[in-house]
Amino acid sequence: MTEQQTYNAPTIEQEIDVISTYRLEEAASKVIPKGGFDYISGGSGKEFTLQRNDEAWLSKGILPRVLADVENPDTSTKIFEHDLKVPFIMAPIAAHGLAHATKEAGTAKGISEFGGTIMSISAYSGATFEEIDAGLNGNPRWFQIYMSKDEEMNKNILDEAKADGATAIILTADATLSGNRERDLENKFVYPFGMPIVSRYLTGSGKNMSLNNIYAQSKQKIEPADVKFIAEYSGLPVFVKGVQTPEDAVLAIGTGAAGIWVSNHGGRQLDNAPGSFEVLAEISEAVAGRVPIVFDSGVRRGEHIFKALASGADIIALGRPVLFGLALGGWKGVKSVLEYFETDLKRVMQLAGTQTIEDVKHARLFDMKK
Amino acid sequence: MTEQQTYNAPTIEQEIDVISTYRLEEAASKVIPKGGFDYISGGSGKEFTLQRNDEAWLSKGILPRVLADVENPDTSTKIFEHDLKVPFIMAPIAAHGLAHATKEAGTAKGISEFGGTIMSISAYSGATFEEIDAGLNGNPRWFQIYMSKDEEMNKNILDEAKADGATAIILTADATLSGNRERDLENKFVYPFGMPIVSRYLTGSGKNMSLNNIYAQSKQKIEPADVKFIAEYSGLPVFVKGVQTPEDAVLAIGTGAAGIWVSNHGGRQLDNAPGSFEVLAEISEAVAGRVPIVFDSGVRRGEHIFKALASGADIIALGRPVLFGLALGGWKGVKSVLEYFETDLKRVMQLAGTQTIEDVKHARLFDMKK
Amino acid sequence: MTEQQTYNAPTIEQEIDVISTYRLEEAASKVIPKGGFDYISGGSGKEFTLQRNDEAWLSKGILPRVLADVENPDTSTKIFEHDLKVPFIMAPIAAHGLAHATKEAGTAKGISEFGGTIMSISAYSGATFEEIDAGLNGNPRWFQIYMSKDEEMNKNILDEAKADGATAIILTADATLSGNRERDLENKFVYPFGMPIVSRYLTGSGKNMSLNNIYAQSKQKIEPADVKFIAEYSGLPVFVKGVQTPEDAVLAIGTGAAGIWVSNHGGRQLDNAPGSFEVLAEISEAVAGRVPIVFDSGVRRGEHIFKALASGADIIALGRPVLFGLALGGWKGVKSVLEYFETDLKRVMQLAGTQTIEDVKHARLFDMKK
Amino acid sequence: MTEQQTYNAPTIEQEIDVISTYRLEEAASKVIPKGGFDYISGGSGKEFTLQRNDEAWLSKGILPRVLADVENPDTSTKIFEHDLKVPFIMAPIAAHGLAHATKEAGTAKGISEFGGTIMSISAYSGATFEEIDAGLNGNPRWFQIYMSKDEEMNKNILDEAKADGATAIILTADATLSGNRERDLENKFVYPFGMPIVSRYLTGSGKNMSLNNIYAQSKQKIEPADVKFIAEYSGLPVFVKGVQTPEDAVLAIGTGAAGIWVSNHGGRQLDNAPGSFEVLAEISEAVAGRVPIVFDSGVRRGEHIFKALASGADIIALGRPVLFGLALGGWKGVKSVLEYFETDLKRVMQLAGTQTIEDVKHARLFDMKK
Repeated sequence: MTEQQTYNAPTIEQEIDVISTYRLEEAASKVIPKGGFDYISGGSGKEFTLQRNDEAWLSKGILPRVLADVENPDTSTKIFEHDLKVPFIMAPIAAHGLAHATKEAGTAKGISEFGGTIMSISAYSGATFEEIDAGLNGNPRWFQIYMSKDEEMNKNILDEAKADGATAIILTADATLSGNRERDLENKFVYPFGMPIVSRYLTGSGKNMSLNNIYAQSKQKIEPADVKFIAEYSGLPVFVKGVQTPEDAVLAIGTGAAGIWVSNHGGRQLDNAPGSFEVLAEISEAVAGRVPIVFDSGVRRGEHIFKALASGADIIALGRPVLFGLALGGWKGVKSVLEYFETDLKRVMQLAGTQTIEDVKHARLFDMKK
Repeated sequence: MTEQQTYNAPTIEQEIDVISTYRLEEAASKVIPKGGFDYISGGSGKEFTLQRNDEAWLSKGILPRVLADVENPDTSTKIFEHDLKVPFIMAPIAAHGLAHATKEAGTAKGISEFGGTIMSISAYSGATFEEIDAGLNGNPRWFQIYMSKDEEMNKNILDEAKADGATAIILTADATLSGNRERDLENKFVYPFGMPIVSRYLTGSGKNMSLNNIYAQSKQKIEPADVKFIAEYSGLPVFVKGVQTPEDAVLAIGTGAAGIWVSNHGGRQLDNAPGSFEVLAEISEAVAGRVPIVFDSGVRRGEHIFKALASGADIIALGRPVLFGLALGGWKGVKSVLEYFETDLKRVMQLAGTQTIEDVKHARLFDMKK
Repeated sequence: MTEQQTYNAPTIEQEIDVISTYRLEEAASKVIPKGGFDYISGGSGKEFTLQRNDEAWLSKGILPRVLADVENPDTSTKIFEHDLKVPFIMAPIAAHGLAHATKEAGTAKGISEFGGTIMSISAYSGATFEEIDAGLNGNPRWFQIYMSKDEEMNKNILDEAKADGATAIILTADATLSGNRERDLENKFVYPFGMPIVSRYLTGSGKNMSLNNIYAQSKQKIEPADVKFIAEYSGLPVFVKGVQTPEDAVLAIGTGAAGIWVSNHGGRQLDNAPGSFEVLAEISEAVAGRVPIVFDSGVRRGEHIFKALASGADIIALGRPVLFGLALGGWKGVKSVLEYFETDLKRVMQLAGTQTIEDVKHARLFDMKK
Repeated sequence: MTEQQTYNAPTIEQEIDVISTYRLEEAASKVIPKGGFDYISGGSGKEFTLQRNDEAWLSKGILPRVLADVENPDTSTKIFEHDLKVPFIMAPIAAHGLAHATKEAGTAKGISEFGGTIMSISAYSGATFEEIDAGLNGNPRWFQIYMSKDEEMNKNILDEAKADGATAIILTADATLSGNRERDLENKFVYPFGMPIVSRYLTGSGKNMSLNNIYAQSKQKIEPADVKFIAEYSGLPVFVKGVQTPEDAVLAIGTGAAGIWVSNHGGRQLDNAPGSFEVLAEISEAVAGRVPIVFDSGVRRGEHIFKALASGADIIALGRPVLFGLALGGWKGVKSVLEYFETDLKRVMQLAGTQTIEDVKHARLFDMKK
């Protein structure tokens, strides 16, 4: 019995009509098998933080601006050596194969067809570098690492990622063990396929293993020395991902991080953490422009991208909505979702009287709680 | 096949019993075809701002006042050369024909029969100036403009509006492109009739076009020079409509606006904007009495009119509730709705111990959030 | 056809088991005819203030106190010449006959059988003074006046009230016209019986008249001179009822009021007013002990009585819950409700470590909003 | 007819799979007879405080910390002479027999099998000291006292508790009479079995008595002298349980308390009290480390334990969730629940970057209300 027979991931490839990503999630829940859908869309514990990620956006309002002389807003920006046509990229997410039979290769193709953005490849990818490469077709990529307890294996993985063309390494530091994923526990969820990149350090391929189990076999004790090791060994810029406090942002920069990745792992790790957007502004103040800030967790609309940029983020990473697009339309669905975000962001920029991303970064938000 | 066969707008003409405008909306939803009702009552995006417009009223309470020596409160006021019997006027709204077969002419007649107030005529009217004139019967009117990209056509339109007797021009500055109207997208909504005033600059008459499409053909880049042009060319006072910040109010005054129109377009443009009432007080402070302030977005009760006046507005513009009255009773329904607001405002004025509109403007509101 | 045939008010007389007054309301809704129940339990407008009266209690918490040396708390207090066994009295409410066939006489008997408290008789009573006297059986009483536009008739009414033994006059100042009672409008509610005390100045007896109509025939313009007139003519202490601001409290005292009655008429007059409890503390500060404060609107539990006393009230007036008791058990039901409040208040006093009403007045409340 | 025939308490003994304690409560509601379940899970009055205990946790967020160098967090701590493997103990709860036929002996066995923590024995236990001892098997225990009005009987009880090996006495000071338990009133709930420890001072054994009745026969007037008496007579450290204010914490310490037990009795006594967690931090400031603080009321997750420790608590006491475990699995279920809390706390500690309980106590929480 093959994987695809066991776990019936969607296979359809089509453009999709995105009215909102919330509707996308609902539609995706009908085509992704329940265990996979709950894994993708769920959070940890009581899902307080998952929900708070969404509610946090409402703490700030965007002010419409008029007589602003704006037309055809320009969404282009730059991160390191990459010129981007939009200020958003793909976040690293494990196991795209839960959403679509083409796995990460499908996502990669959607991204490269959209163009002008970056793919993040997760260490817990279900596809191999080679499979993803076929989809990416030369598009820029970053590699996200879950470290092994064995230094040699980490060197191996970094060698491979670098050989594959990664231009930055994302060190996920907020997942030293699995969050309390109650939905997965209830579903007794295990991955229906292996994880070729990290299988070298797992007992088993990853297939039929629970997330808990896989995390337990990965390195739990992440420390400043790890940032230094990755930066020095790879020679690439390193993002520390999972930063939620000014203290950690400063620590990460001090230890050699080339970028700060503000994220609470989409509400999947420590439940009862604040909404990711709530902590962004004070982290941005602490970073003070020394390194770029990537932001994720809870981004579902153009308004969200606008608010994050106006609160100090340089780049926004998209996660679940892209997977829902993948589920509903394969690589074409991924492209549709990215186009939706581009259109929606342009609309918000126009109505908020901002011509460029730089203008957005200087926009005044309205305190909705006062 | 005529328009009326395609789109079955209500045709009934009758006085209506208004217990509350919220109930009116519910009743109207049963007689207006779904596409039209959703267009009229819906907002943009997740309809956060639409809802916030309503909730924002609850941020301030009205204090009952006793031993106040009040009887038969006087609701009369003045704006420019017009003596009004009530401090509210009709807001400019597109396409009244969605609500009733008599289109803007029906609304106009209801207004003139009520008397002592002002009709705003939208550039996206489905009726011609002549048809509206028949209903208005000499009643004062203001004209709201959506500009063409072609200056000559704008002159044409202004010439016509002036010839029609408009005593002020309302420049809508917050709608340089369409908000993200998800309900319209879902309904694949297009206007079932043409828009005679702006058809000169559209490809097509407006009929069977989406709002998105029409906005795209209108001028997107609205700038201070437009205010100056309209004021100078027309010789009429110009309102800048869609102001939501003190910054824009000051900019508009500096550029020659004779009035500030505080509005978030009824929650139909930039979703995630604050409630319109939330931003009124600080705009009023910035305006500092230099020009009059018209306020709209979310007004459904006498209490709302009271609160807006007590927060710095001089005139309140009514929108959707009037269209619901039009749908339920034609011009007689419009008149019933205006009478409801007059009665309700008088009741609130009496119970709040305010004899005149000037008294209302000096009433202390209670901070419900502290 | 007699009144009782037209309007089937409950007639049962029995002790009732009061678990909470909220449950009482639900039970009463099943025995009182709908028009009458909606009249009694409803508020004005969107019933925002009605609901806020309830929610406002949650803005302050009561702090449990231990090692407080309390046993058998003493609820007795004093107002003017009256020694009370409890700090609560009956609020003036119109038309008890909607709740029970024995009308105000039933309430009066329940109060006198409970003892140690005061009955307020409403000018809009459906029973005559004589009928009420039979129930009161010598129990103290205050008289609440809705003034006529005719001074002689007011003298008449005051003469009668004084002859009847009233020891204070309550001038309702917040009801110079009817609140916007949407439920009554929907039910087309009219009183099923006359109002003997004020019928002298009505066109009609009150029977088959709407509240709107009756208020319109009463005096609308209530001013400081009215307080002076009542005090001088009657020689009795006058309460100004409906005070919701420090300004009005000071004005009322200056004009000769012997007491301030903080009330928003149970959320039945100006909708969008704050919850009555929300404004109590600042009124109490302004009154500064010069005259006693009676508080009503929203009192449903012993905790509420405690909080009002700890926020500056001297006496609490109970309204709807008593009528629900009347509906469910006649005078015996009234007595059960008063006993419930006594028991509940004692429990709260014990758990909050307060032996006397004076202790309660000095209890620190906890700010639940900070 | 024996007790067990009358009241069918669960008898099953099995390990249970704890996904969350909220689910446990739901599962328990299906196996515990309704009267018993409502007694255990219910609160007083409108259950505002019961609910607020849960909501209060959300007023503070836990901040994920990265690069923290944490692995296998250490949950061990110390209270008086006891070395604990976890910072939580069993709270004193009456009548475990409602949840399981093995009564307190079952709970005791679950605790001793888990090990490294303390059992609190309630004076209202349905089991005798001897029965509980069998389960405890030498495990440390504290004794909670409800005092008699008769000093000799109190000496008796203290003698017995001390002979039984109690190493501290917990004086419950917030329950000098029963809270307003509406569910119990509605169910006409009486205990289906006796209370051997206090039966010496009851009229009746406790069986078929209501909580109200039992409290009424216990001492109501708890005063500072009682703390002194217990401490001197027993020679044991005394906790004052039910402290919710800095004032009472200081008073209790001044009167000889060796520990402060912050609790609102699980929302079962004074309704409208703040959530217990809301008052912890200011009490901790007042205590200023002079004596240890035990915290209970509303603890359902590892996150809650973390937040309480970070807000000044030294030890957390668990109540209802343990009884739900008892109901679902007897002593094995109790052990499963304790293991769940241990695992959950370790996960939170890891993700919050805290290696030891001392680290947790110094963690910065995030103000979710600002």
